[in-house]
Amino acid sequence: MTKTATGPIVVINPNSNTHVTDGLVDALHGFEHAGGPKIECLTLAEGPFGVQSQVDSDSVVMPLVELVNERPDAGAFVIACYSDPGLDACRSVSAVPVFGIQDSGVLTAMARADCFGVIAIAEASILRHRRTMARMGVLDRLAGEIALNMTVDESARGPETFSKLVETGNALLERGAGAIILGCAGMARHRTKLESEIGIPVIDPTQAAVAMAFGTLVTATG
Amino acid sequence: MTKTATGPIVVINPNSNTHVTDGLVDALHGFEHAGGPKIECLTLAEGPFGVQSQVDSDSVVMPLVELVNERPDAGAFVIACYSDPGLDACRSVSAVPVFGIQDSGVLTAMARADCFGVIAIAEASILRHRRTMARMGVLDRLAGEIALNMTVDESARGPETFSKLVETGNALLERGAGAIILGCAGMARHRTKLESEIGIPVIDPTQAAVAMAFGTLVTATG
Amino acid sequence: MTKTATGPIVVINPNSNTHVTDGLVDALHGFEHAGGPKIECLTLAEGPFGVQSQVDSDSVVMPLVELVNERPDAGAFVIACYSDPGLDACRSVSAVPVFGIQDSGVLTAMARADCFGVIAIAEASILRHRRTMARMGVLDRLAGEIALNMTVDESARGPETFSKLVETGNALLERGAGAIILGCAGMARHRTKLESEIGIPVIDPTQAAVAMAFGTLVTATG
Amino acid sequence: MTKTATGPIVVINPNSNTHVTDGLVDALHGFEHAGGPKIECLTLAEGPFGVQSQVDSDSVVMPLVELVNERPDAGAFVIACYSDPGLDACRSVSAVPVFGIQDSGVLTAMARADCFGVIAIAEASILRHRRTMARMGVLDRLAGEIALNMTVDESARGPETFSKLVETGNALLERGAGAIILGCAGMARHRTKLESEIGIPVIDPTQAAVAMAFGTLVTATG
Amino acid sequence: MTKTATGPIVVINPNSNTHVTDGLVDALHGFEHAGGPKIECLTLAEGPFGVQSQVDSDSVVMPLVELVNERPDAGAFVIACYSDPGLDACRSVSAVPVFGIQDSGVLTAMARADCFGVIAIAEASILRHRRTMARMGVLDRLAGEIALNMTVDESARGPETFSKLVETGNALLERGAGAIILGCAGMARHRTKLESEIGIPVIDPTQAAVAMAFGTLVTATG
Amino acid sequence: MTKTATGPIVVINPNSNTHVTDGLVDALHGFEHAGGPKIECLTLAEGPFGVQSQVDSDSVVMPLVELVNERPDAGAFVIACYSDPGLDACRSVSAVPVFGIQDSGVLTAMARADCFGVIAIAEASILRHRRTMARMGVLDRLAGEIALNMTVDESARGPETFSKLVETGNALLERGAGAIILGCAGMARHRTKLESEIGIPVIDPTQAAVAMAFGTLVTATG
Repeated sequence: MTKTATGPIVVINPNSNTHVTDGLVDALHGFEHAGGPKIECLTLAEGPFGVQSQVDSDSVVMPLVELVNERPDAGAFVIACYSDPGLDACRSVSAVPVFGIQDSGVLTAMARADCFGVIAIAEASILRHRRTMARMGVLDRLAGEIALNMTVDESARGPETFSKLVETGNALLERGAGAIILGCAGMARHRTKLESEIGIPVIDPTQAAVAMAFGTLVTATG
Repeated sequence: MTKTATGPIVVINPNSNTHVTDGLVDALHGFEHAGGPKIECLTLAEGPFGVQSQVDSDSVVMPLVELVNERPDAGAFVIACYSDPGLDACRSVSAVPVFGIQDSGVLTAMARADCFGVIAIAEASILRHRRTMARMGVLDRLAGEIALNMTVDESARGPETFSKLVETGNALLERGAGAIILGCAGMARHRTKLESEIGIPVIDPTQAAVAMAFGTLVTATG
Repeated sequence: MTKTATGPIVVINPNSNTHVTDGLVDALHGFEHAGGPKIECLTLAEGPFGVQSQVDSDSVVMPLVELVNERPDAGAFVIACYSDPGLDACRSVSAVPVFGIQDSGVLTAMARADCFGVIAIAEASILRHRRTMARMGVLDRLAGEIALNMTVDESARGPETFSKLVETGNALLERGAGAIILGCAGMARHRTKLESEIGIPVIDPTQAAVAMAFGTLVTATG
Repeated sequence: MTKTATGPIVVINPNSNTHVTDGLVDALHGFEHAGGPKIECLTLAEGPFGVQSQVDSDSVVMPLVELVNERPDAGAFVIACYSDPGLDACRSVSAVPVFGIQDSGVLTAMARADCFGVIAIAEASILRHRRTMARMGVLDRLAGEIALNMTVDESARGPETFSKLVETGNALLERGAGAIILGCAGMARHRTKLESEIGIPVIDPTQAAVAMAFGTLVTATG
Repeated sequence: MTKTATGPIVVINPNSNTHVTDGLVDALHGFEHAGGPKIECLTLAEGPFGVQSQVDSDSVVMPLVELVNERPDAGAFVIACYSDPGLDACRSVSAVPVFGIQDSGVLTAMARADCFGVIAIAEASILRHRRTMARMGVLDRLAGEIALNMTVDESARGPETFSKLVETGNALLERGAGAIILGCAGMARHRTKLESEIGIPVIDPTQAAVAMAFGTLVTATG
Repeated sequence: MTKTATGPIVVINPNSNTHVTDGLVDALHGFEHAGGPKIECLTLAEGPFGVQSQVDSDSVVMPLVELVNERPDAGAFVIACYSDPGLDACRSVSAVPVFGIQDSGVLTAMARADCFGVIAIAEASILRHRRTMARMGVLDRLAGEIALNMTVDESARGPETFSKLVETGNALLERGAGAIILGCAGMARHRTKLESEIGIPVIDPTQAAVAMAFGTLVTATG
């Protein structure tokens, strides 16, 4: 029983903004180590610059399926967009596990607290996220979801992002959240600092998905 | 931003059967690597030889709390008993994450399929597990739970265990399960073989919990 | 307050099988009358010959969005595939109501009985349908879903279809169904006969969706 | 396959206020057309002047059953009171479909949006409505219900009704409603104007019920 | 702080079969004691001989309301029919607590076990009972409901009743019931014997309701 | 069929504060009468002075099991702490019914109103209580839980307790509560006065549990 190298964890940024992909690399490099699975972060060239609407989200499904089909060498896939586009379709064509970051983020938050809160980027995406949580059957554990009402770009760089995160996190804490999910693929670098500031677990959903993907690979080679 | 060594993942076998602890070591060594967190598997000396009844399960809660208090160096804790004894109490005294294996196993199965099934060791524990899933609010995603009706010891060693697992896994598949959880801390070595045999993901709950614990440590040092 | 002619109810068959579209015309002509909205049944040229898999279903979403965008004259849209592909996306771009036939069929069945049953064409689609009902939050009212295990083609023409429908409908009745949904766009012509045979309401989901669409148009001109 | 005339849709106003019945006639005449089913609006002579309390609601059940029994010629029944009095009892004695307006209104709103809101006339009826929605199993999709706190009479005629409706509709929109139900049989004439004003679908529940009833008749003759 | 005599617990048999009322007297006399509240069992003269259909159940609502209004001296009311007719209406007019026996029986069973089963008299009433449990929001704790398929009369007297009860109780036990409710007002005399035979708690719903009513009176005078 | 004396109802105060036990005696003496079951209120010597944390709650489980084992003469047990510590374990070893006061209090409140509210002593216990209600599956009927934010001692004696109770009860009423539970074993003496003041049923959970226990004993001897 030896630890064998297996295929990489392929993390797909379904939008074409390579800054987001760079952020994923930063957020995930801690998972890599000698002898372990590689983490490969890809940008979906066909994707919109940002996934902001339902149509944006649906527009990447078929390209994601294609990409999954083109990578039979992968050990696992992570779809790094909080709307979980194409999760069912990619699972249906893939021989290896496929994780969505909303799905993994929510389930990981549920492993940390009775009720969780979500910080969304934009108001408009809250309803889209709620549909996913309804389908997951986890609405009873949702303390609330509140939007920063910033663009993805602002949220990643803007100087006021952190104070807005603290304010929003505390508002969710007051609504009963025992853990907070950063409801976007691009806010990982705020995670530890925000966790210290508000005093409850803060989950970066891409890290949560990669941790689960890592688990399937480690145990597959056990 | 460097990868710093942190405290170990302390995995506690709440029964006093050291064979079970040895099995945990085998099941989890794949998670260890140079520079990463250590996995330390402990036997709760005060525990019963097996946790079979509600009283057995409750009897280990205070010793688990004590053990957690004695290990301020730990990076995370995993309570390796499928009844999740003392999960709330240990969380309430610990500064670091505490994972229960039923909790983590169920949430990880939910990341793999719409509905999951559970293979229990004994009929009597099914109701105890159901209480936990009711509290988690996930009963709508449970396809079923079926018991092997073997002792823990038989299930770990007996020659007929594997064929019984296949039969039970297939029965759960027929009830709509898209993933199967091995509802016990001691069946990890059957995981990959059973997965091949029945064709749907099989989750070892201790591995699921350690993957989540690993994720919190990696990202804490990111 | 006069009854004004408004745009047509555009019913889209998302697969490219024109026999299915012809069946829709037959099923829906009863809704047309002088002075009322027209019913226009279209075939999605880009669609697969049948929507059988998750990928088939997702593959038609963007073409459906495009079609909706090309028809600003429509009074309402009905997506005539029981997987409800593109429902959220089409709604997000349309100024007029968009109905999915699973959605409308289930809600109409709930207006007829406490619990409903669904007759699916193929086993594989049951799980896909379940996801939709989970998201709708209506699983508590589902008595069961049973597949005919025929191809769409067989189900539309085959001589044994009707006896299989009766058998399946009665099985759902025994599980507590008080109304039955024909879980496919192409079985309308069996509706009244099956209803007589098994003695409980039988819902054709496309007719259910068109009745709702008709209602929005009538009342918009009231 | 010809379009045959069938029995009328009998819409029963269970209170004895004929102004309400007149309003129903106005609200529903758009559904009538040459060759289609007639819409017949009746006043329940035995009913109270308004259905405001639980006892009012229960007092009309047996007269409704009697009326249903006296009309074997009907093609469908609609009970036009938002408390859905006698729905189960009338269904149990009727050979043709019976629709309740709360039931149909809620289900139709669910066909238009993920979450719906309800505008009630009086505070006291909110709890009565909640019981119905609890039984329907749809509370997870309720964004909220807010009362106008007017009498039925004021709500139908008063000059301030419309501005109060807009204010209440907007309050429900803020709570997440994607569609609004007018929780009363007598507010249809505000429907289209309110829909324009607040920008999301507004459902008149009697029109919703008649649309469903119409659908059953059309398809029965198909 | 003295123990004051208060008004009687008025237990109303809503059918006109006085044998049923006599059975209630037998079932409840254990609750009476010197200085405590009286138990008064009444027959609703206007009731049908048995409440078997939805119309039977609804037909007694207004007479029950009247009866409640005529007894301002009562300390509490119990409506002794498992369909809980008129519970909301009677509560709305009564200054003292009103208990329904299905409601109290189910809640009391929930105080004894995680999941409960119900033994119904007739198949046809199962759906009516389900509506009540749906509204109560307790379907997740229902292991099952199975009918004896006897008349009320047979169930009260017939020689085969007991063996049928044992068989049905055991079937519910196999489905996971941890407590059994006798789903009818007239089976109390089988309670203790059945409990011994099947080994799990058996609840007579009228006794359950009277125990709750008794509690409100005792504590009101404390 | 005679009324036989049976074992006492043993009410256990799991904390070592004998003032609380004295309060229980006062709250429950109304249930005692000649020929009926005795009520015996015990103090758990091993308990903490107050049960305030999760660890406090779990620390009493094994002593409670022991105490139950030492009293084979009991007719029923009531665990008089609103966290329901040891309820499952005590049930699993006891031949007679065991009631938890949160469990009984909530179920009794559900027999009085559609939605209930809870007045907690301390903020920190609200989450612990929520876990129990989640497991019970009754969150849909919870209007809210609000803490007094007093110590148990203050709540039992302090002059401002009553005005704080009224304020909190009214806040719950505004959130839709139709009945209020005093979420603690030591507030019974405020029950009737608070009920008069806020005008809806107020439930003392220990009295609720003893009423249920009383019911099982009366009917066991019937």
